[in-house]
Amino acid sequence: MKEAKIKVLARPKLKRPILIEGLPGLGLVGKIAIDHLIRSLKAKKFAELYSPHFPPIVIIMPDGSVRMIKNEFYYAKMRGKARDLILLTGDHQGLTVESFYEHAGKIIDFAKRYRTSLVITLGGLGTKKIVQRPNVFGAASSSGLVKKYQKYNIKFDRTGTQITGAAGLLLGLGKLKGIDGLCLMGETHGNYVDPNAAKAVLKVLEKILNIKLTYKELDSQSKQMKEMFKKLREIQKAPQKTETGKPLDLSYIR
Amino acid sequence: MKEAKIKVLARPKLKRPILIEGLPGLGLVGKIAIDHLIRSLKAKKFAELYSPHFPPIVIIMPDGSVRMIKNEFYYAKMRGKARDLILLTGDHQGLTVESFYEHAGKIIDFAKRYRTSLVITLGGLGTKKIVQRPNVFGAASSSGLVKKYQKYNIKFDRTGTQITGAAGLLLGLGKLKGIDGLCLMGETHGNYVDPNAAKAVLKVLEKILNIKLTYKELDSQSKQMKEMFKKLREIQKAPQKTETGKPLDLSYIR
Amino acid sequence: MKEAKIKVLARPKLKRPILIEGLPGLGLVGKIAIDHLIRSLKAKKFAELYSPHFPPIVIIMPDGSVRMIKNEFYYAKMRGKARDLILLTGDHQGLTVESFYEHAGKIIDFAKRYRTSLVITLGGLGTKKIVQRPNVFGAASSSGLVKKYQKYNIKFDRTGTQITGAAGLLLGLGKLKGIDGLCLMGETHGNYVDPNAAKAVLKVLEKILNIKLTYKELDSQSKQMKEMFKKLREIQKAPQKTETGKPLDLSYIR
Amino acid sequence: MKEAKIKVLARPKLKRPILIEGLPGLGLVGKIAIDHLIRSLKAKKFAELYSPHFPPIVIIMPDGSVRMIKNEFYYAKMRGKARDLILLTGDHQGLTVESFYEHAGKIIDFAKRYRTSLVITLGGLGTKKIVQRPNVFGAASSSGLVKKYQKYNIKFDRTGTQITGAAGLLLGLGKLKGIDGLCLMGETHGNYVDPNAAKAVLKVLEKILNIKLTYKELDSQSKQMKEMFKKLREIQKAPQKTETGKPLDLSYIR
Repeated sequence: MKEAKIKVLARPKLKRPILIEGLPGLGLVGKIAIDHLIRSLKAKKFAELYSPHFPPIVIIMPDGSVRMIKNEFYYAKMRGKARDLILLTGDHQGLTVESFYEHAGKIIDFAKRYRTSLVITLGGLGTKKIVQRPNVFGAASSSGLVKKYQKYNIKFDRTGTQITGAAGLLLGLGKLKGIDGLCLMGETHGNYVDPNAAKAVLKVLEKILNIKLTYKELDSQSKQMKEMFKKLREIQKAPQKTETGKPLDLSYIR
Repeated sequence: MKEAKIKVLARPKLKRPILIEGLPGLGLVGKIAIDHLIRSLKAKKFAELYSPHFPPIVIIMPDGSVRMIKNEFYYAKMRGKARDLILLTGDHQGLTVESFYEHAGKIIDFAKRYRTSLVITLGGLGTKKIVQRPNVFGAASSSGLVKKYQKYNIKFDRTGTQITGAAGLLLGLGKLKGIDGLCLMGETHGNYVDPNAAKAVLKVLEKILNIKLTYKELDSQSKQMKEMFKKLREIQKAPQKTETGKPLDLSYIR
Repeated sequence: MKEAKIKVLARPKLKRPILIEGLPGLGLVGKIAIDHLIRSLKAKKFAELYSPHFPPIVIIMPDGSVRMIKNEFYYAKMRGKARDLILLTGDHQGLTVESFYEHAGKIIDFAKRYRTSLVITLGGLGTKKIVQRPNVFGAASSSGLVKKYQKYNIKFDRTGTQITGAAGLLLGLGKLKGIDGLCLMGETHGNYVDPNAAKAVLKVLEKILNIKLTYKELDSQSKQMKEMFKKLREIQKAPQKTETGKPLDLSYIR
Repeated sequence: MKEAKIKVLARPKLKRPILIEGLPGLGLVGKIAIDHLIRSLKAKKFAELYSPHFPPIVIIMPDGSVRMIKNEFYYAKMRGKARDLILLTGDHQGLTVESFYEHAGKIIDFAKRYRTSLVITLGGLGTKKIVQRPNVFGAASSSGLVKKYQKYNIKFDRTGTQITGAAGLLLGLGKLKGIDGLCLMGETHGNYVDPNAAKAVLKVLEKILNIKLTYKELDSQSKQMKEMFKKLREIQKAPQKTETGKPLDLSYIR
């Protein structure tokens, strides 16, 4: 195995599908969002991407069987809608810089087979602040698309920001192959897993896709995170010093 | 030489062979086991794997000739049994992460040519304890296989454990090509060469393959190791301090 | 995407074009020069080079769209001249040593399609001195070419100097494919962006190509740099010590 | 340029040529020897090996032209002898481990085209001692060859020694392609360029090839080295201490 390979498990007929990507990245925002979407839509797995650029391990599962590191393609048939969905989740983006390009190229080629003409990538944008109501920042593969999606309460104002990995390269390589691209990034601290930013991203996606999601599980996870940060804030109020004599900086908790 | 190559030395006719792998890894458990098996069964070498991902050296042998770094395939014809064996040993697993996948892929493809439908990988599982009676832990490529092999006194309870390198990838890549896989891991400290853990693994393998092995050589090696550890334990009993004033921690010797 | 690819946007008819390269390097001398040339000649983009060896990012532009990291080929039709120009600029040279060779090879092959028989590479040569009137050093792919270009006030006297990256490899790989090569290097400090060295290089290029350029923009940039260095020199005159007690060494400002 | 390439400059007719390799390595022993041989035999260059795994630079020559990093094949027609010679010298062995294998593979394939059936590799074997009369150590691709060459005063007793790079891999990969191999290693300190060890290797080669060489140039280089070491020894006789209070250890000068 010298390069990434996509193993096809089923060949569903899909209506002009939108590819939505949520591989692991900052705050796991994209991955939490896509996995919630996969569960909510009862999407079905139809392909897997394996790669020599993933960690060379297998992991033992509770039943004693092993699983490889992989990316997974799911599909969701959208009744009464013009377009079906292909949902991409996974364990890893790759161990080398070159593999980011290789994987994104394979993913775009695979999506083209299903006549995908739009890819939406999900991720986090790190601001080193913990916020209650995270913004959703955006970028697109053309200024025409920016105009089209501006109405969905997406902030297209992060000039100069770099988007690393699949979330960015799927837009770039997609454009080279004639696929439109939209990137949605939930505002997140960057050091913490952030289900709340994932919900913010999904809220925008609901409007774009004209679907309705519930968030019980994400809300409960967010609540746990919030309580953890509340405790941190209380600790901060007590007069205290760190071992080095410098007060703890918890100012990033807004 | 841009990628690994298998040089075929002979083309034996083999009955639905089982591939058994024992490349160097933790405690050299797998390698000690496979080399003992090769000697015991008087297996014959029939192929060699060379790779640009092995160290770029040759080693001078006692007769003045040189040998390259390689992996070696042996076969053993099993009279009166339904299946013959292919036994894989070697010097090295590869210098890069990607090469682990490349080598495992070539090995699986080679085994497929002989209609191999089962691969058993041998290795060590590090517990940082030195034990008299090492457990044999297991993992398999499906839960059906776990059930099938549970009776052989294999502990399939290491949920979450990662298996690195050939021992794991041969199961993973094998499954993608329709080959069943079983991994046997002898409990071992991890910092020491461990013939005793190798024997434990071979004891399980004896039952699975329905063969009978003797262990004179391994037992003598294990005895030497045991005496070394006994001395360490006596040293520990004497009142003593290390140079840093902290008593030596030899608690890992059970 | 496993290797660099050139995406062709247009297929202009060009008269025996000269390829002129100015990718990022020491003092950004080559890039500043080529970008000035592209603007001055109103050159048109006709191809882009993408590569898995560039950083795996996209950058958000002011209009909310994203751009990939790339190299760009422009052409300029030269009325009344015997040869047209292909101008190569870009964001990056590549993240690995091997990619320098891969990119240079692709660029030479692309230039060959247009029957390019001469490549001129632009760059900086670091001397750790800040000079008012930078020399232009040169090197060529044969001693015959050195003689031909000596009259243009180029100093061909840097025996033993190594030219790293595209500026050197395009000469080397070009020669293997029968393309003449000339490298022009503006004398520069090495630690600073240097529009003045870029102008010196362009002055030589004007004579070689028999064209006339204006330098308003570069002169204004150079003036800003000069004022910055003037201030540094004044600071130096005042009696002063650094924190470590050693006077600041500003002797590199001539 | 994604992999190493051999550019053929001429297609000489050669009688069953012996390939002799002397690329840069320990003490530059092999390179000094091969370059002396090329000069002495007035050998002619007929091919060059270029590689993306060499440093990505060109070097400016005294005449202002540039040269790439490369390996070079020379041939020498041996009048009255049964076999001609192919002599391999060069600037570099490669920047990565994998490239050592790639280059050695290309070299062997190239030699095969000329029906080469013997490769002799030249190098140094580091002993951390400076000796007047260096031994020549050897290794071969089979024990039959060891016996054949034992009479030439080669010490085939370095069991366990590892030979790194081309000197070893040409034997290993050569054997896989049916080419006999002999490695000659001059005893050398390892930290110094060693023309004297190169001479010792050439003295053995003279006998094997049944040729006669003169050593004026090498002897003068060796004399300079010897005088340098003599001075070091005199310094040692004077009562002295190093700055750290420990006497200088010059015992490696025998």
